[in-house]
Parts: sequence; C-alpha cells; structure tokens
Amino acid sequence: MIKTDILIIGAGPTGLFAVFEAGLLQLKCHLIDALPQPGGQCSEIYPKKPIYDIPGYPEVLAGDLVDNLMEQIKPFQPGFTLGERAETIEKLEDDTFIVTTNKGTKHHAPVVAIAGGLGSFEPRKPLLDNLSKYEDNGVAYMIKEPEVYRDKKVLIAGGGDSALDWSIFLADVASEVTLVHRRNEFRGALDSVEKVQQLKNEGKINLITPAEVVGLKGEETLEMVSVKDTSTDEVTDIEVDNFIPLFGLSPKLGPIGDWGLEIEKNAIKVDNTLDYQTNIPGIYAIGDVNTYPGKLKLILCGFHEATLMCQSAYQRIFPDKKYVMKYTTVGGVTGFDGSKKEAPKAVVKAID
Amino acid sequence: MIKTDILIIGAGPTGLFAVFEAGLLQLKCHLIDALPQPGGQCSEIYPKKPIYDIPGYPEVLAGDLVDNLMEQIKPFQPGFTLGERAETIEKLEDDTFIVTTNKGTKHHAPVVAIAGGLGSFEPRKPLLDNLSKYEDNGVAYMIKEPEVYRDKKVLIAGGGDSALDWSIFLADVASEVTLVHRRNEFRGALDSVEKVQQLKNEGKINLITPAEVVGLKGEETLEMVSVKDTSTDEVTDIEVDNFIPLFGLSPKLGPIGDWGLEIEKNAIKVDNTLDYQTNIPGIYAIGDVNTYPGKLKLILCGFHEATLMCQSAYQRIFPDKKYVMKYTTVGGVTGFDGSKKEAPKAVVKAID
Ligand SMILES: Cc1cc2nc3c(=O)[nH]c(=O)nc-3n(C[C@H](O)[C@H](O)[C@H](O)COP(=O)(O)OP(=O)(O)OC[C@H]3O[C@@H](n4cnc5c(N)ncnc54)[C@H](O)[C@@H]3O)c2cc1C
Ligand SMILES: Cc1cc2nc3c(=O)[nH]c(=O)nc-3n(C[C@H](O)[C@H](O)[C@H](O)COP(=O)(O)OP(=O)(O)OC[C@H]3O[C@@H](n4cnc5c(N)ncnc54)[C@H](O)[C@@H]3O)c2cc1C
Repeated sequence: MIKTDILIIGAGPTGLFAVFEAGLLQLKCHLIDALPQPGGQCSEIYPKKPIYDIPGYPEVLAGDLVDNLMEQIKPFQPGFTLGERAETIEKLEDDTFIVTTNKGTKHHAPVVAIAGGLGSFEPRKPLLDNLSKYEDNGVAYMIKEPEVYRDKKVLIAGGGDSALDWSIFLADVASEVTLVHRRNEFRGALDSVEKVQQLKNEGKINLITPAEVVGLKGEETLEMVSVKDTSTDEVTDIEVDNFIPLFGLSPKLGPIGDWGLEIEKNAIKVDNTLDYQTNIPGIYAIGDVNTYPGKLKLILCGFHEATLMCQSAYQRIFPDKKYVMKYTTVGGVTGFDGSKKEAPKAVVKAID
Repeated sequence: MIKTDILIIGAGPTGLFAVFEAGLLQLKCHLIDALPQPGGQCSEIYPKKPIYDIPGYPEVLAGDLVDNLMEQIKPFQPGFTLGERAETIEKLEDDTFIVTTNKGTKHHAPVVAIAGGLGSFEPRKPLLDNLSKYEDNGVAYMIKEPEVYRDKKVLIAGGGDSALDWSIFLADVASEVTLVHRRNEFRGALDSVEKVQQLKNEGKINLITPAEVVGLKGEETLEMVSVKDTSTDEVTDIEVDNFIPLFGLSPKLGPIGDWGLEIEKNAIKVDNTLDYQTNIPGIYAIGDVNTYPGKLKLILCGFHEATLMCQSAYQRIFPDKKYVMKYTTVGGVTGFDGSKKEAPKAVVKAID
C-alpha cells in the first residue's frame, strides 16, 4: 500500500505543479497516470510544439514546460505510479481514501486531487480477433521502457508522430524495426519524416506501405504478425517479438465517472468559490478535468486551482494548524531531500 | 485623451499579463502606474531576488520575470502612462469610464481593470519645511530618466538598495554624486555595498555619514542642501542641482479607495465566482489588490484572474459576439504590430 498526503490522479502540468504547492506546505504527493511518462497532454500530444500563453514565457515547448515542472518539484520527491489507470475509490471510516489501479496497486491518502485532464489516455486499438491474448505478451500500445526492446524484432504500426519517432528511436535499440502504415504518406514533423526516409534508405527500418496488420500468431506469446499489402491484397507473415500499434491515445474520463462525483459536460463540477472541492469532501478536481462557471481549459488556470486546492487540503489534514503563507522569495524552498534554495540575504555593512 | 479597450491601473505582473490575454482577444490595453517603470513590487522591491513559485520556473529573478512579461506582451503594443497616479474616475452615460491622473492625463475606456497591487507606490518623504516648493524643481523621489542628471551635481539620501544602486549608476552620469546616510552602515546586496565603497575610494562618490539633510535653499529652483553631521552636529551647505531622497516607496491604496468600490481589509472585493468584477459593472480588480474568500496574494493567482477578467471584458465590449477560445499552440499569436508567432505545421509526406 502506497501512503501519501495528497494522492494526485493525473500527472499533467496541473498535477505536477500541485506537488510543488503541496511541498511548500510540507505535504507529500504521489501521482498516478495511465501514461508511461509525466506531462499529460503536453507530453503525449504536442511535446515539440510551442505554447505562447504560459505567463512569463514568450514561448516554451510543451515538452520543455514539463521538464521544467519536473525540475521545480524535484525537491519534493513525488512518487509515481505510471502506466496504470486509477480504477476504484473507497472511503474509509476515518474519512481517508484508498484508490486502486487497473493493475491492483493500492494508494492510501487523506486527500485525493483529481487532475485527470480530458481523462485517462487510452490507446486506440486495432480490430484484431485475438489481440487481448497477446497484450503484455508481445503487444503493447505505449512504450514504457525502451530497453525492453533491445535486440528484439519489433513491428510498429501507425502513420503519425509517435509511430515515426519510436521507429527512429528503436532503430538503434531493436535488432529489427518494421514500420507498417496503411498509406504511403506519413503525417508528422518534417524532420521525423525525413529521418525515417533516411533510415529506410540505410536499411535500418523496413517500411511496408500501404499495408495493414490483419492477424497475430503465436503459441503463448506473440511470434508472427500477418501484414496485408493493400495494393495487392497479398498477405505476408513476419516473424516478430513485439507488435506496437501506435494509432494514438484518446482521453476517456473512464472509471472516475462512476465515483459518485457530480459530472457536467464530461467534467467534474467543483466549488470554484473556494477550493475546487467536489461534492465529496476530501476529493478535489483541478485543471482541465473540472468545470465551473467561466471555466477555461488552460494550463495557467490549472496552476491557480492547484494552489488554492493545496491550502484547503492542508486545512483538511491539519484542522488545528494555521498555515501562514510565506513568499518563496522570503522563506526559500526546503525540499524533503534536505535541499534548500534561498535568496541571497542583504548585508548590513559599514562603508568607511 | 488616451483611448483604449481595457484601461489597466497598475503595471505589476498581473496588469502586464492582462495585456497578453486581452491581446489574444484582439483587445488593446493601456496601463497607468505611479512608478516610473513597469513591474510593480517585482521591479520596485526585489528585482534581483529569485522567485521559486512561478509555475515552470524552478527559479527566476523578479526583474527577469518582468522582462519576460514585457517581451511576451510586445506584440500587443500596450500604451503606458508612467510616473502618474490614477486619481479620479468618472462614469459616462454610455457606461464607459474616464480616469484622470494626478498630472491631469485623461484616459477613456469601456473597461477598467484595477491591478493596483498593495496600492500606488508613494515615496516616503523627509520632513523638511519647504520641500514641496522644490518638488520637480530639483527634488525628486524616483528616477524616471537618468539622463536628466547628466553633468549635474546630485545629492542622494538613503541607506538601502535604491540609494546604493542609483549612486553607483549616477557616478558615471552626474558631474558630482554625494551620498548622505544617517548611519555608517548600509543595508543592501553585498556587491552594491562593495561597489559604493570602491567608488568612494576612487573619489567618484562623496560619502557623508552619519548625517542627515536638514534644509533646502534656492531662489526658484534648488541650489543648496544643508547637511548635518550627526556625530558633531555641524551643518554644511552643499551646492547641488538635484536632491534625491530615496527612503523607500510604500504602497497606498490611495484615491481608488474613494471610487465607491466595496473595500475589505484594504483590498477591493470582487466576484471570484465568475470574473473578478467589482460592485461597479465594468470595473474589475485583479491580483494583489482584490480580495475574496481564500484569496492568496501570489503572482500566479493574478495571472489566472487576469485571464478570466479578459473573457468577461470581451463580453462587455462585444455583447453580441461569441468568442471561441483557441489554444495559442493551435492558433498562434497575431500581434497588433502585424507580427505572427506560430507553431511549425506538421507535414503530410510520402516515404518511398
Ligand atoms: C494540441 C493542443 C494544444 C494546446 N495548446 C495549449 C496552449 O497553448 N495553452 C494552454 O494553456 N493549453 C493548451 N492546451 C491545453 C493544455 O494542454 C491542457 O489545458 C493541459 O494539458 C491540462 O493539464 P491537466 O494537467 O489538467 O490535464 P492533462 O494534461 O490532460 O493530464 C491529465 C492526465 O491524467 C491522466 N489520467 C486521467 N484519468 C486518469 C485515471 N483514471 N488514471 C490514471 N491517469 C489518469 C491522463 O492520462 C493524463 O496524463 C493544448 C492542448 C492540445 C491538445
Ligand atoms: C519581498 C517580496 C517577495 C515576494 N515573493 C513572492 C514570491 O516568491 N511569489 C509570489 O507569487 N509573490 C511574491 N511576492 C508578491 C508579489 O510580488 C505580488 O503578488 C505581485 O507583485 C502582485 O502583482 P500585482 O500586479 O497584482 O501588483 P503589484 O506588483 O503590487 O503592482 C501594482 C502596481 O500598481 C500601481 N498602482 C496602484 N495604484 C495605483 C494608482 N492609483 N495609480 C497608478 N498606479 C497605481 C503600483 O504603483 C504598482 O506598481 C513578493 C512580494 C515581496 C514584497
């Protein structure tokens, strides 16, 4: 059982920044995310695109923003349960919560902050009969640890940035990379498309287009993928260790929708007059996942909501303590790792 | 008469970021500030100190944050009335407002956003009989244009960072710089204190301590300052063109307190359930200057408030238009100066 002060569901920019604000209040956080990496939409959908409306950043790449947030929260040593979906919640008699993921990992905390964005990112899966048999047995929809594919024969399907970028990356790791796409045209960043062309010319990526995967074979684990050339309808079996269909991830509010929270327009209603708490005391919703009159689904709004949520969480966890806010410039930042950041002090010094 | 869409009172971080959000909605802004430079508390009180809780910035100097905000809003060409205090407001029959400063400058706008922070920064003045006679006639409490002091004889009084830093700066500009302080000890950044010591040793700054200014003389404009050595009580007259007492600026809500706005705890009450509007429709209050349940006087909260305020201002100005929000990453940023920032587009390209 993982224990923490604030259990955050969703490691997008909002959830990440909540770790920082909680840390200033000496509260520890643990984050659950269905994705294998932190950053939410910024990491998954547009890591290499610039955002122009982060205050104080005339321009910042979404991926860099996530890196900076990770750096900012480092002193507060957040825990992560990645690649798992928060599935069920249970309220104990002492008003604390247990949240269990689809893989059975249990988390216990007095406060739950849902920072689930547009929902848990779930893969679009190909329609293949025996697909589920091979899930985690050769078939994966996201790449959590690239080292798993070292010296393996990997077949990737898809025609967007993820398919392109992972083909490029794995060309250096796997023993064989095959990329299958139903068209000859790929859609992605120009340099990614050009790099795949180059690797194909060098024989480091086998490209099969226009084609689609029509079957999976293998005793226990995946052994063979059947690929149909759609211009000739000819089907070839290709020996592989891994099949990674990268057809995009789409967010689904999912199980959280059944937790007894008031839902409106596919988002969780919160009390924006005070602390972004939901109808269940102790459960908050911040960032894109919440709704209230005038709500804007912007990153900078999530930051503000996370900050006010933490103040309220502190009151819930320490009903008898009164927190006196100190500016970071004045009080510095004291990490759970013993680190301390502090502004240089003014001196009082005679001039003679 | 200066005309604009949103008249912003206060050019601190909140007011500055409001320009950006308004710009995205194609609304023009003009800012009034009592200080000679933008940035509010960040520029005036702690420009060289690090802030640790700006989201996405593990650390940023307050002065750099202001520079970055100025860079971010540049495409939206805000106007500035600096060094003047917003004094009176008048509501016209068409529900627009005229705001007049203490120097008589008039501004006309359908929306007024008060981003006044802790109030208008007003100088602490020395207690000298005929002080007001020389104001703007040799006596100044802030330095707006350093060039005014080129080849002049300047006497600065004070013992903090401003007195130290301006003495250092003007040592290169003025023909003579005298620094008077009632103690031998100065309080400021170590390198500033050391630099003044060095300039004194080189004869570029005349230092008189412990001492205080006890009188001002001059026919029309200032000609002479009487300085008392407080260790001997001896008074000396020093010939000067300018006397700049830098005893700190302290914020005062000031005239805005009489505009008929609901005030609580020296701050303006706003409707935080929607748009940070005050009790007078069309007048908003954002950032440190406002109050509502759970209010935190943090820069990141001002950013959020500014953003929601702009949406409401848009509705007030264009009651018949419906604004559809576009992410900056998707829609880019189109400046009033014709500039355009845009994310690189994905390509659709065949690989053969
Ligand atoms: C193309 C594009 C461009 C954009 N441009 C801008 C812009 O310029 N400016 C701007 O402010 N915003 C922009 N946005 C929106 C911005 O990305 C979102 O506002 C922001 O990501 C919301 O952050 P969040 O942390 O609230 O949620 P998200 O980033 O959506 O993160 C939520 C995370 O929660 C996880 N999750 C949800 N439910 C569960 C569960 N049950 N179990 C486990 N994990 C779960 C999800 O997997 C996800 O990783 C853009 C969005 C897109 C798609
Ligand atoms: C030492 C110190 C350290 C701090 N550290 C942090 C920190 O780490 N993190 C954080 O988030 N915050 C910190 N703050 C607080 C932060 O600086 C404020 O929250 C922020 O400056 C508020 O911005 P604002 O734009 O609302 O107001 P301000 O920065 O106060 O700007 C308001 C401006 O309005 C002007 N004004 C007011 N009335 C009038 C008028 N009638 N006419 C003309 N001009 C007027 C003032 O002159 C001023 O320039 C700190 C503050 C101090 C003093």
